[in-house]
Amino acid sequence: MSNWLKSLQTDTPQEGYELAISLARKGVAYTQPNAEVREKLRPEYAENPDSLTFASQVIAIHFQTVAQANDYWKK
Amino acid sequence: MSNWLKSLQTDTPQEGYELAISLARKGVAYTQPNAEVREKLRPEYAENPDSLTFASQVIAIHFQTVAQANDYWKK
Amino acid sequence: MSNWLKSLQTDTPQEGYELAISLARKGVAYTQPNAEVREKLRPEYAENPDSLTFASQVIAIHFQTVAQANDYWKK
Amino acid sequence: MSNWLKSLQTDTPQEGYELAISLARKGVAYTQPNAEVREKLRPEYAENPDSLTFASQVIAIHFQTVAQANDYWKK
Amino acid sequence: MSNWLKSLQTDTPQEGYELAISLARKGVAYTQPNAEVREKLRPEYAENPDSLTFASQVIAIHFQTVAQANDYWKK
Amino acid sequence: MSNWLKSLQTDTPQEGYELAISLARKGVAYTQPNAEVREKLRPEYAENPDSLTFASQVIAIHFQTVAQANDYWKK
Repeated sequence: MSNWLKSLQTDTPQEGYELAISLARKGVAYTQPNAEVREKLRPEYAENPDSLTFASQVIAIHFQTVAQANDYWKK
Repeated sequence: MSNWLKSLQTDTPQEGYELAISLARKGVAYTQPNAEVREKLRPEYAENPDSLTFASQVIAIHFQTVAQANDYWKK
Repeated sequence: MSNWLKSLQTDTPQEGYELAISLARKGVAYTQPNAEVREKLRPEYAENPDSLTFASQVIAIHFQTVAQANDYWKK
Repeated sequence: MSNWLKSLQTDTPQEGYELAISLARKGVAYTQPNAEVREKLRPEYAENPDSLTFASQVIAIHFQTVAQANDYWKK
Repeated sequence: MSNWLKSLQTDTPQEGYELAISLARKGVAYTQPNAEVREKLRPEYAENPDSLTFASQVIAIHFQTVAQANDYWKK
Repeated sequence: MSNWLKSLQTDTPQEGYELAISLARKGVAYTQPNAEVREKLRPEYAENPDSLTFASQVIAIHFQTVAQANDYWKK
C-alpha cells in the first residue's frame, strides 16, 4: 500500500475522530485487500446493528490512540 | 458531516459520560450514514440484552478517553 | 436524566468497583431508557454465561477508568 | 456484599493475576447474585472454547488495572 | 497452582510477547482447570477463524501490559 | 519460532501500523501453528464482515501498544 498514514497529529478532535475511522477501515483493507469484495460485504454489516456497534468499537479503540497522540487537544 | 466535536473537555463527569455516548453513536452514524436505516434497526438491538451490553461497552471505551482528557475531573 | 454522576473519586477500591457497575448499567439505560423493557430482558442474560461474562467485561473497562481516577487508592 | 476488595496492591505478579480473576468473577456475581444459578451455568461455559477465551479476556483487562496499581512489580 | 509468574520483565519484546501468550492461556486454565478437557477443546477453536482471532485479542491485551511493564524495551 | 520481533520502534506511524498487523497475525500463528490450516481458513473470515472487523480490532489494540512505544511519532 502507498503512504497513507503520515502522522497521528490532527488539528481538531473531530479530525482525530475521522482519522480513527480511517485506521479502523485500514485494518479491514489489509485483511481483505480486494476492494470489490469489501464493497459487496457492506450491505451485510451496514444493516446489522451489532456489526455497526462492532465497527464503532474499533473506532473507539483507535480514537483512544489518536486522542492520546494529540494530548487530547487540550491546548 | 458538520462540526460536531469541538472539544473533549466537559464541566462534569456526567457531561463527559454523555459525550462518550455521542462518540459511540457517531461511530455508528459514520458507518451507516442513513438515519432512516439506523432508526429501523433500533428495536432490533434495544430489546436484545447482548446488543445493549455491547453499546454500553463502546461507551465505556470512549468514557476512558474523555475521562483522561479531563484528568478525571479531579480538581 | 438527573444528576447521577457527581465524581469518579471513591473512598475505597470496592466502592470504585461498585461505581464501575453503575457506569456499565447506565450505558444500557441510556440506550434502552424503558426500565420495564430492561427488567423484562434480565432473565435472558442473567442465565446466559456469555452474557454474564460480557457484563463483567464492561465493568472491567469502567473499573480501569475509576481506578486510574483514584490513583489506584495507593495512599 | 461484604467487604471483599480492600486493596489493589499485591506482593507478587501472580497474586495480582489471581486478584484479576477475583475481580472478573465478582462482575458476574454482581450481575447474577444467585450462586446456585452461577454454579448451574458452569458446565455450559467451562467446556466452550470461546466462553473460556472470553473469561480469559476479562481477566486480562483487570490484570492491566492491577499491574498498573502495582507499578508492574518492578521494584 | 504453583509459582508460574515471577516477573513481568523480559529481556526482549519477543519474550514479552510469549509471556503475553502464557498469561492468556493461564486465564483459560484457571477457568477450566482440567487439562484433559482443555486438550479436547483445542481442535474446536484451532480451526475456527474467529476463535483464533479471539485468542489473538487476549494476547494483545496482555501484551499491552507486558510492554508497559518493560517500558517498551526502549533502552 | 525464530526471532521475529526485535523492537517495537518504527520510523513512521505507517510502519507502526504494519507492525501491529504482524503482532495480530502472530497471535493466530502461535495458537494455530499449522500454516496450511490457517491458509485454509482464510476465505472463511476474509469474506465475513464481522470477522474482518474483529481482525481490525486486534490490530487496533496492538497499534495502541506500538504507538505508545514510539511516543506517537511526535518528534
